[in-house]
Amino acid sequence: MTTRKLGRGVAVVGAGMSQFGVFPAKATRDLFVEAFLDLRQSVDRGFDPQEIEALYIGNYSSELFEGQGHTAPIMADWLGLTPRPATRVEDACASSGVAFREGIIAVASGLYDVVLVGGTEKMNNLPIAQVTDALGTAADVLYEIPAGFTFPAFYAAMATAYMQRYGATPEALMRVGLKNHDNGALNPKAQFNASIADIMAQKQAAAARKGRPVPEWADEMAFLHDDRANPMIAWPLRLFDCSPVTDGATAVLIVSEEIARRFSDAPLYVIGSGQASDAALHGRSDLTTIGAARAASRQAYTMANVQPGDVKLAEVHDCFTIAEIIATEDLGFFAAGQGHAAAEEGLTARHGPQPINSSGGLKAKGHPVGASGTGQIVEIWKQMRNEAGARQLPRDVDLALTHNVGGTGQTCVVHVFERR
Amino acid sequence: MTTRKLGRGVAVVGAGMSQFGVFPAKATRDLFVEAFLDLRQSVDRGFDPQEIEALYIGNYSSELFEGQGHTAPIMADWLGLTPRPATRVEDACASSGVAFREGIIAVASGLYDVVLVGGTEKMNNLPIAQVTDALGTAADVLYEIPAGFTFPAFYAAMATAYMQRYGATPEALMRVGLKNHDNGALNPKAQFNASIADIMAQKQAAAARKGRPVPEWADEMAFLHDDRANPMIAWPLRLFDCSPVTDGATAVLIVSEEIARRFSDAPLYVIGSGQASDAALHGRSDLTTIGAARAASRQAYTMANVQPGDVKLAEVHDCFTIAEIIATEDLGFFAAGQGHAAAEEGLTARHGPQPINSSGGLKAKGHPVGASGTGQIVEIWKQMRNEAGARQLPRDVDLALTHNVGGTGQTCVVHVFERR
Repeated sequence: MTTRKLGRGVAVVGAGMSQFGVFPAKATRDLFVEAFLDLRQSVDRGFDPQEIEALYIGNYSSELFEGQGHTAPIMADWLGLTPRPATRVEDACASSGVAFREGIIAVASGLYDVVLVGGTEKMNNLPIAQVTDALGTAADVLYEIPAGFTFPAFYAAMATAYMQRYGATPEALMRVGLKNHDNGALNPKAQFNASIADIMAQKQAAAARKGRPVPEWADEMAFLHDDRANPMIAWPLRLFDCSPVTDGATAVLIVSEEIARRFSDAPLYVIGSGQASDAALHGRSDLTTIGAARAASRQAYTMANVQPGDVKLAEVHDCFTIAEIIATEDLGFFAAGQGHAAAEEGLTARHGPQPINSSGGLKAKGHPVGASGTGQIVEIWKQMRNEAGARQLPRDVDLALTHNVGGTGQTCVVHVFERR
Repeated sequence: MTTRKLGRGVAVVGAGMSQFGVFPAKATRDLFVEAFLDLRQSVDRGFDPQEIEALYIGNYSSELFEGQGHTAPIMADWLGLTPRPATRVEDACASSGVAFREGIIAVASGLYDVVLVGGTEKMNNLPIAQVTDALGTAADVLYEIPAGFTFPAFYAAMATAYMQRYGATPEALMRVGLKNHDNGALNPKAQFNASIADIMAQKQAAAARKGRPVPEWADEMAFLHDDRANPMIAWPLRLFDCSPVTDGATAVLIVSEEIARRFSDAPLYVIGSGQASDAALHGRSDLTTIGAARAASRQAYTMANVQPGDVKLAEVHDCFTIAEIIATEDLGFFAAGQGHAAAEEGLTARHGPQPINSSGGLKAKGHPVGASGTGQIVEIWKQMRNEAGARQLPRDVDLALTHNVGGTGQTCVVHVFERR
């Protein structure tokens, strides 16, 4: 397939998110309004919401999580934006990354100049076993789920294949979690606004409060090796290798390039977009890479005319720690089989040469599945505009990338952003 | 809102559908392959499926109906089309009409030249009460479903409001069902390939076979008034006022205008597209019209630069008979309050001046919800190319329209097609 250019340029002029966490008293629509109000604050020159011409809403499964389908018009109604076209886009955990791409395509088509892209998921209504079942519908329910697979098990299979081939250790995975919690500790919107050290201290304080024996750990790695503190979920993945179950919403405002400065003093230009599909995991020959990520990033790099080395920050889809390691290889930051060493050596840390997931990633920021793709763009927005506060990267971020995966990699969507 | 033109022209060069009906042994993917193979036959000059650059799949709720989410990449995989981008679009029963619009937008953007748009739904896996519940998620589950509403009840509320305001009778509704079954009797792919007279004869034969008393009816209207043959579902809507629960899939191939003749001797050009959203039914001031249909059709007519009177055939969203009557008014074929008389006078019959639903409509052809939007285009394709066989309209169809509604009208999408 050839990679073509879009008919006209598209820019991001605002991005916002709700608090990520567990919110029993809120519905998806409430979280989305919260995200939209945050977005409004982010538009430098302000704007009238009535300028919005269409909505694209990424949502994985409000049907299963809160019994509500047909969510896009509800979001339009809750913002007072009917009768504008409102379209829900679903590609599992890549839903809002793909919705963003649809928004870009729509602006590029000439049909709209101003489009709102949202992502939503309210996952904590169900008991955890039902959440696991709901997420399982993103795999192949005819061939995979009857074999006993859950999502931790799929990624555990990928992890064991990767470890076997490349000699990676569980410690490399743990380093990803440590780093992402370090970043999340500096992100006030994160579900886990806490480093692993913070979490250790919280657990000690809780034990003391309850009059129980106060656990002691030599260091974070000792904590992560403790089967009680960090139980095994699906070997080699432990609890802190898995992203949490999150309620949250995100929103991004995109406009045609030529009017971007009317909205923003520092718009982000979308210079690359790629999307690819793949067979479900059981149909793939190699579990140590996600082919759709390689294909999507190749498209995005070609459209943007940049190399992986040009990317100053990437928000990647770390639904499990192994997924981040594989992503850094699929995106070309490290050669195949070298991502685990890079993680262990701290190359992907906030102050490292190839920062990954400065937001805390899905691991610490949280993973409201349908909201995560546009959530990545919220972080890119802040970092590229030097508005990330305590977690602002030391190096100027003039080019950044988002990598959003659906399921076990049946979908991947990649975007490249430039600040001019 | 202004109505803008698309960046470049788009044409339909093929359309196909699976058999519509009840298929316990088939999964959605099987039905979609069947639709795609039918589409392949329809492309005059043939084509290599590998030319397809992206897939848009309309599906309402495979999650709820067959426990399978993330369906778009499965459809790509089943056709051998990975790693092409595969995106599921959901707007309840308007899902594939909106997917079609997304496909058009994507071609217009310049990103793709050849796009496959599909629609799928496999509804008969669940017991009927669960189907009703699943469909209910297309309404507002916070405000409407707890009040006891089901979809027949929503449309019954619209019907009673309409009858009260305009003096329409239940017989006008019955005339819609009669007409659509007359058309469906000539459509071999229809779930009900049978007129009401055929169904009466089937029931009589079945009774005789079982040695039961053979029912007699003076005519079709007597049958439709018989509480046993045509039971009340939600007054004034009886069984034959409601579309059935259907398994089916549909597929449409669209390409950029400039290459259309490479695929087809008689492509259909998409000259108008409109989409609109609205509040859920409880939030609307008028139950006798669907505002989103009025808004979407206005957009489509303006883009196409045509008038309602120019439309030679319309496939409209007759999920219930009242919906067809209201649609013919919302689309401007008849003035508000006159659609019921038009139906009674036969103006919308196949040989009438304003033919509606020559396919049999959702009522007789069947309503696999996510597949219905592109299913309408299959009929338009056949009629505009003079390939509709026994149900071919007497008058040449050089301009036609599709009208696809989601939920109670929270979404409507309208397209206008021209044969040149």
